[in-house]
Amino acid sequence: MSRIQIYDTTLRDGSQGEGVNFSLQDKLMITAKLDELGFDLIEGGFAQANQKDAEYFQHVQDMDLKHAQITAFGMTRKKEIAAEDDLGLIALRDAKTPVCTVVGKTWDLHVTEILRVDEAENLAMIRDSVAYLVAEGRRVIYDAEHYFDGYRHNPEFALKTIQAASEAGAELVCLCDTNGGTLPEGIAAAVKAAKGAIKAPLGIHCHNDSDVAVANTIRAIDEGAVQVQGTINGIGERCGNADLVSAIANLVLKKNYQALHEGSVEHLTELSRYVYELANMNFRSNQAFVGSSAFAHKGGMHVHAVNRLASSYEHITPEVVGNNRKILVSELSGRSNIVAKTTKYNLNQDAELMKAILARVEELEYAGYQFEAAEASFDLLIKKVAKTYEPKFARLHYRVNVETDSAHDPQTEATVKLKVNGNTEHVVAEGDGPVNALDNALRKALIPAYPALETLQLVDYKVRVINSTGGTAAKVRVVIESKDNKEVWSTIGVSENIIEASWLALVDSVEYKLYKDDGEFEPAK
Amino acid sequence: MSRIQIYDTTLRDGSQGEGVNFSLQDKLMITAKLDELGFDLIEGGFAQANQKDAEYFQHVQDMDLKHAQITAFGMTRKKEIAAEDDLGLIALRDAKTPVCTVVGKTWDLHVTEILRVDEAENLAMIRDSVAYLVAEGRRVIYDAEHYFDGYRHNPEFALKTIQAASEAGAELVCLCDTNGGTLPEGIAAAVKAAKGAIKAPLGIHCHNDSDVAVANTIRAIDEGAVQVQGTINGIGERCGNADLVSAIANLVLKKNYQALHEGSVEHLTELSRYVYELANMNFRSNQAFVGSSAFAHKGGMHVHAVNRLASSYEHITPEVVGNNRKILVSELSGRSNIVAKTTKYNLNQDAELMKAILARVEELEYAGYQFEAAEASFDLLIKKVAKTYEPKFARLHYRVNVETDSAHDPQTEATVKLKVNGNTEHVVAEGDGPVNALDNALRKALIPAYPALETLQLVDYKVRVINSTGGTAAKVRVVIESKDNKEVWSTIGVSENIIEASWLALVDSVEYKLYKDDGEFEPAK
Repeated sequence: MSRIQIYDTTLRDGSQGEGVNFSLQDKLMITAKLDELGFDLIEGGFAQANQKDAEYFQHVQDMDLKHAQITAFGMTRKKEIAAEDDLGLIALRDAKTPVCTVVGKTWDLHVTEILRVDEAENLAMIRDSVAYLVAEGRRVIYDAEHYFDGYRHNPEFALKTIQAASEAGAELVCLCDTNGGTLPEGIAAAVKAAKGAIKAPLGIHCHNDSDVAVANTIRAIDEGAVQVQGTINGIGERCGNADLVSAIANLVLKKNYQALHEGSVEHLTELSRYVYELANMNFRSNQAFVGSSAFAHKGGMHVHAVNRLASSYEHITPEVVGNNRKILVSELSGRSNIVAKTTKYNLNQDAELMKAILARVEELEYAGYQFEAAEASFDLLIKKVAKTYEPKFARLHYRVNVETDSAHDPQTEATVKLKVNGNTEHVVAEGDGPVNALDNALRKALIPAYPALETLQLVDYKVRVINSTGGTAAKVRVVIESKDNKEVWSTIGVSENIIEASWLALVDSVEYKLYKDDGEFEPAK
Repeated sequence: MSRIQIYDTTLRDGSQGEGVNFSLQDKLMITAKLDELGFDLIEGGFAQANQKDAEYFQHVQDMDLKHAQITAFGMTRKKEIAAEDDLGLIALRDAKTPVCTVVGKTWDLHVTEILRVDEAENLAMIRDSVAYLVAEGRRVIYDAEHYFDGYRHNPEFALKTIQAASEAGAELVCLCDTNGGTLPEGIAAAVKAAKGAIKAPLGIHCHNDSDVAVANTIRAIDEGAVQVQGTINGIGERCGNADLVSAIANLVLKKNYQALHEGSVEHLTELSRYVYELANMNFRSNQAFVGSSAFAHKGGMHVHAVNRLASSYEHITPEVVGNNRKILVSELSGRSNIVAKTTKYNLNQDAELMKAILARVEELEYAGYQFEAAEASFDLLIKKVAKTYEPKFARLHYRVNVETDSAHDPQTEATVKLKVNGNTEHVVAEGDGPVNALDNALRKALIPAYPALETLQLVDYKVRVINSTGGTAAKVRVVIESKDNKEVWSTIGVSENIIEASWLALVDSVEYKLYKDDGEFEPAK
């Protein structure tokens, strides 16, 4: 059971991903979370370059980290300059992190075409930079950029560069598949060669451009690498980095390596969602191990089997990574899915109720509902059939009006009149479109009575025409995804009228949120 | 350069994915597209089970497929019943596809715990089912469910099951990692064993639960498998299937195998987006090879290098998979489409016009338009840029009102005021929903001047939220499919307001119909 060092670069390489933009506060919160779980190294950002990273390196010094070491990222010195005069290396020194990660050129093509120096000078740049930081009392990790492309084109030179880093005192050399173009067998050969060529232990840093970053990472470990670099959820430039969530789960659960703290793997789902939340990105429902659908079962055959024997259609028990089994209710599922879902609330012992729920689901599915993507509506449906549902408000009236002239964007206005706790709320709101206006009016009417709805946010809105042969007169299915600071849930509405379908889904979302806050929908003990 | 057979199961295993729901029309359109690109086998659906798949197998017989063979999917016979009396096998026979795919149990645990039969009966179930369909004149592919788990737990029995299938006449045995829990080295060992044990050639069918489905697929090919099963974009149950897009790109571009038609790899990006469109799913921007960010460069260092030497930060040239570099060009997906389309009208000789069209498309795609699924709007766009577009009417005003009380379905009314051939038409109409009412009013105003619109019918109406993080305030893309007695065409509208987006698509549909009836849009002679 050897231990694999986990090096997280979510804050540096991850933040190069399109649309990813962490605030200083986000970066500090992620640092604390990673430390808590036992990540060994956290690359906090660029030593040089921007204000936010500079502030990060200052603030992180005041954090009481239990385990993780912070590293700052920078490049080897510029050509034809002394290391101690290089602004990048000075910035690395001044970041005051215990570890510095220095990236240098490994691929002869880059040396001659991008840097435009000769090979000897490139080796000197590596040697000088590592030696300078070591002399300054830092632990140095050397990142061999484009190692795998370099090794393929000119193995002799590629190996010389990492030898230079190792000899100059780098405590570890990380081999980077910077372009993400290498397949596992290419990784294996090149890692093996590196292992034979240098004394320093090896790390692996993969990108997912060929859709095999996790497999490449594991292959490098098989060949003797001892450190994995990657990002949480694989966020990063282009197709992203190796996803540390998948890499760690595979290494610990399938290959019996040690990584992080004992028991931390159970927090991978929570960690994944925490980072998505801070990055302001939507969860990826089909993400391996931690996605909300990763243990979802739709086909009736599968569900039937899962009920008989959980391991039959699950490669691991969802709970070992902190995830849950999810039974989808759909036309493909039949009775066994519903039985499994109602088990959660101990309802399956009530045969009459089960029958009534099944009948109601069948009726609604025939009318165009689909509960597989709308679990919150399904939870409410159970309450409705069980007659434990008490609406938090009653609709008296709504009106939506969209109006425009020859040239301008339309004006949209919604009025909503509700009975809430005995009071009549009659409000009006505008919006970018009719559903947005309706949503705004609904909240405006409810927030005085239910301030918790302030935290409710719509995340996604999907529309499908069901029996599409009828054109615009066909039925419309609206699915709304909502979230608060704890959970994400989906609700559904079906109607010939898209406004009414949206209204139904909005109402379910609000009702679910309020019931949930009251502690309903917790699994039965 | 050996050839790998590509077996697509987007329409069957893909449709088990959460939220995936193809209409019959979608399924037929995907079939045509896959055939065009040279996919060898297309698994159309379940032979038994549902109406939609039954209709698919009927309609697909009338399609003029050039290359692809359709297969129907079903299970081995039930226990203790003759194959010819088994409803599933009868349905497979009656699906009338040239190929049948039969799935059977390989893992002893499933045989004893789920099926609850003894091992001898399981072998008989496999043998009888394959033999029955072969005797009925079908080519049979045998899917060994849970082969890799089965091989790990009881290799002897697992191999006996595939021997039974091979000896009974299966033309190929596909090894399935049904739970997606196997890592590449486990794939290698088990494929090698299968290869030594049976005569039939081998296929590989992976799921992505361990985030290594594509690597597993490639590893199986390395060990001698000759067929790859997967889905477009990896859609499918839980974490999805092996993504055929990545698998094909890796096999053809990196390992020099042949697959699909010569040159089809250049259409992978287009294919990926086409399937997302029909599945009503958002593109995954960081998807390997075909994602809109797959060749996007954000890091300043990278951009600088890419400018000096494109290959420095790209593992392949984006164009070889029909994708684009993002810093240099826009997200423009279908440059080749545009060239092809303008060729149709002999416009491509007018370099200035071509440039103007490209610029306009880029602008509109940036705003959320997508012309792949809206060719009629694209035809109109060409006319608009070429300044040969003369609107058949002008909008003066519209208003849509949706209103309801506590219990009833909403009342919907639309008023439309147009200038048509110098006359002002001001009409009002009702509808089942706001778009239907608007459509009714628009026709009511136009039919006196353009009676040909009597034959215009809306066939389908699709709505997508584009930047979905904004919830109901995000932009909305509406695609409308229309037909008359001669043709089917699609138009698009984008706006923050769903009513306005629908209006734009409706107007394009009407304009296209009227221009088309005037003989426009015929290919240039």
